[in-house]
Amino acid sequence: MNFWLVEDQTEWYKLLWKIKETLHVEKTKYQHLAIVEMGCGRALILDGIVQTTTWDEFIYHEMLAHVALVTHPKPQKVLIIGGGDGGTAREVLKHKTVQSVDLVEIDQKVIGNSIKYLPNISDALTDEKVKIIIDDGIKYAQRTQERYDVILIDSPDPVGPAVGLYKHDFYQNISKLLNEKGILVAQTESPFFNQDLLKTSFSSLAILFPITRLYLACIPTYPSGLWSFTLASKYYDPLAVKLDNKISFETKYYNKDIHVSAFGLPTFILQMINNAVVV
Amino acid sequence: MNFWLVEDQTEWYKLLWKIKETLHVEKTKYQHLAIVEMGCGRALILDGIVQTTTWDEFIYHEMLAHVALVTHPKPQKVLIIGGGDGGTAREVLKHKTVQSVDLVEIDQKVIGNSIKYLPNISDALTDEKVKIIIDDGIKYAQRTQERYDVILIDSPDPVGPAVGLYKHDFYQNISKLLNEKGILVAQTESPFFNQDLLKTSFSSLAILFPITRLYLACIPTYPSGLWSFTLASKYYDPLAVKLDNKISFETKYYNKDIHVSAFGLPTFILQMINNAVVV
Repeated sequence: MNFWLVEDQTEWYKLLWKIKETLHVEKTKYQHLAIVEMGCGRALILDGIVQTTTWDEFIYHEMLAHVALVTHPKPQKVLIIGGGDGGTAREVLKHKTVQSVDLVEIDQKVIGNSIKYLPNISDALTDEKVKIIIDDGIKYAQRTQERYDVILIDSPDPVGPAVGLYKHDFYQNISKLLNEKGILVAQTESPFFNQDLLKTSFSSLAILFPITRLYLACIPTYPSGLWSFTLASKYYDPLAVKLDNKISFETKYYNKDIHVSAFGLPTFILQMINNAVVV
Repeated sequence: MNFWLVEDQTEWYKLLWKIKETLHVEKTKYQHLAIVEMGCGRALILDGIVQTTTWDEFIYHEMLAHVALVTHPKPQKVLIIGGGDGGTAREVLKHKTVQSVDLVEIDQKVIGNSIKYLPNISDALTDEKVKIIIDDGIKYAQRTQERYDVILIDSPDPVGPAVGLYKHDFYQNISKLLNEKGILVAQTESPFFNQDLLKTSFSSLAILFPITRLYLACIPTYPSGLWSFTLASKYYDPLAVKLDNKISFETKYYNKDIHVSAFGLPTFILQMINNAVVV
């Protein structure tokens, strides 16, 4: 048998991943879910799109978590919206000041199958500091009374119910859940394939926060490789933080140099967000 | 008709590019050459691999050329090995100190078809400062008496005759063509898919030069997106150069921040090259 996952990135560009073994497939209440063994490693696929692989997940999860957590001098309470595979929570728990992590995932099946099939990514999901809340992140942001030091928006691609996770209303509600000096990071997709989304997300956050900065990482299994994160902060600037001795945990991608260089933006992306903010 | 270019990156990973129009196809003395209109723009394909597209070529060409040319205080004579599409020469000519560019391309058909079909990339090929030498770069390095301030190795993937462009003998010969304070940059492929090549290229150059530094860019049409360049310098350090007022030319990717942040390396790549140098 010669099975391939065909990812339709655009009308003119597809990625093909060889499927060595299909470990689990189901239609959940929200999406098609598959766990497969690909040539590069084991992967979680949602609605035909590779969400995470054991090959390169470290880049995405480290970069989503550590920039904000190193910038905040004492992050204690952390909220993750999405992130049901557990990779972001794993990175958050590397910070010893963190006392609790609330993880709001809409689809319980993502949690269960990640625990079963992706142990190296999901082990934080059974940690006693992590509280799993099965809920729609948008609704949770509207009604919770909890307040957080750091919020990480680990959202899937903007299709179906996830579209609302990139809208101004959601960012406004979620910003109210931050403590006075809190920091938020949202993954904001590819600067090549999702320019409109990146611009509207960035300008929404720039309206709500005094400090808003875009940073980048290169993640092979995501379309175009280049990936953006938007950090929005009420007080602390990631580029003003003294990094000496702050990074004592183990990583494979993030480090002191990356903390700074990730904010070095190509000219075409600078122009993109500068135009976005003016509008 | 529904034509797709299928790029076999590894046994388990392929890229598919929609072909809207085939403008030219031929078998040259050295390779299969095609110029096609893809969904993302016009592209040069050699032996089934996308070499350059009008969509993202600016990233590769700017990053290959400007880091060295900005680091050198007065680059006058430049050598390009490969680069028959002309994109690297176009970027080199943005530096007003440059008096001559020797471009050594093995395949005359790459030059001719680039001039005909890729005018926005190739316009420098007809500039009076650019001298096109149809020759094997390896042989040219062995016998030329010319000396250069900056040498840029714009090589294709390491298959067939290009394999020699990543070997120690070639780097040794080419290093002799540099002036006393000269700088060389070689594209050294993907840190994900070509780790052995990256390590051997880097350690070869680290043996030959007092200053050797790896830098990165993200280029969507190249496999994994993440791409490496190795800069080897006899005297000037790219991270010690004062950048104020040095970058007065127009770019879409490279800028003052990128000149520095491109050298910020993820931990796994730092480990890769540190191990390489020890060996």
